[in-house]
Amino acid sequence: MSGELFTLTYGSLVAQLLKDYENVDDVNRQLERMGYNIGMRLIEDFLARANPGRCYDLRDTADKIQQAFKLYLGVSPSIGSWNPGGDEFSIVLETNPMAEFVELPDHCLGLRYSNILAGIIRGACEMVQMEVMVWFIADQLKGDNVTEIRIKFVKRLEDAIPAVAEEAEVQSAVKPPSSTRASPCWSGFRTEDRDSQRPHCSAHRVE
Amino acid sequence: MSGELFTLTYGSLVAQLLKDYENVDDVNRQLERMGYNIGMRLIEDFLARANPGRCYDLRDTADKIQQAFKLYLGVSPSIGSWNPGGDEFSIVLETNPMAEFVELPDHCLGLRYSNILAGIIRGACEMVQMEVMVWFIADQLKGDNVTEIRIKFVKRLEDAIPAVAEEAEVQSAVKPPSSTRASPCWSGFRTEDRDSQRPHCSAHRVE
Repeated sequence: MSGELFTLTYGSLVAQLLKDYENVDDVNRQLERMGYNIGMRLIEDFLARANPGRCYDLRDTADKIQQAFKLYLGVSPSIGSWNPGGDEFSIVLETNPMAEFVELPDHCLGLRYSNILAGIIRGACEMVQMEVMVWFIADQLKGDNVTEIRIKFVKRLEDAIPAVAEEAEVQSAVKPPSSTRASPCWSGFRTEDRDSQRPHCSAHRVE
Repeated sequence: MSGELFTLTYGSLVAQLLKDYENVDDVNRQLERMGYNIGMRLIEDFLARANPGRCYDLRDTADKIQQAFKLYLGVSPSIGSWNPGGDEFSIVLETNPMAEFVELPDHCLGLRYSNILAGIIRGACEMVQMEVMVWFIADQLKGDNVTEIRIKFVKRLEDAIPAVAEEAEVQSAVKPPSSTRASPCWSGFRTEDRDSQRPHCSAHRVE
């Protein structure tokens, strides 16, 4: 599948949100929330398709995220800039396919155009029992040389139903799967039975 | 690139529109408009990438549309159900990747969930001097066996600036290229110089 249609459709989504919300901070928040809900579903597909195996530490997780970028966006980011404590790293994109063909006008400089990615990473990690913080520290749309996303490990979650995003009406389009969590990669369970779970988790309602 | 991310992102867009507009007819219209603007840009990419050559008649055009579905959605629809006059045909999808994992709740039965596709086809055709009407006549989301899109040739357009969609603020995200039209496939011009035009046409502003 070609990415151009995705890029243009994402552009329509961002434009619609800019039309809907009064300020770009709300748009940023909304994009992150949408991403969070998408990430909670996308992890299912990733585990089923990429068969990534266990993650023994955060470096393994970083490798899986790199693999997911390749699978879903067709780009291979580099991973690096680990902090001394080893609980924080960067994903660096030389080119960001989400933002191709986009220019931000002056009144949108506060917009984190690709913020859906931050939400997707957070949502996907949460489904495998990892709470993370995700934020952009460089963005080519704002004149930086690369696009850099920072990820910080916060804590390991106990097996429980994931937090529901604040705005139920938005979330409903991309509901969390009806099971509690995806079978965890992080916590060491095996993922071979992903396919058997998919039909159960793959329908969602748009309302 | 995997289509799952696209499908989920499109779901977020539809959910946002359902939240924004009072009734599903407005959502259908909005999706068609967004598609129209996307189609006007996507044709550039299609001509550059697929190098589809000239269209001598509507059957050639139907073949190109089939090719575009393969390129952008990863599915091969069948083309058929030509009317006796030869100016109307159907595109039939056995599975619609836009609508995978989607169920419409009862109060959304009037929603044409994939209506962005109708707009994309209309916008892309208009850029190559063909005015067409595009509408869904069957939809698996509504219990039909297949998803069927009907296309009717209306007229050949003279070379002119394409009509601007009514809502400028929405359209701005996916602006028509700054040139007038894509070099026409339908009207018989060659497309070899597409690449030289792309940088000129490929940036758009989100506002």
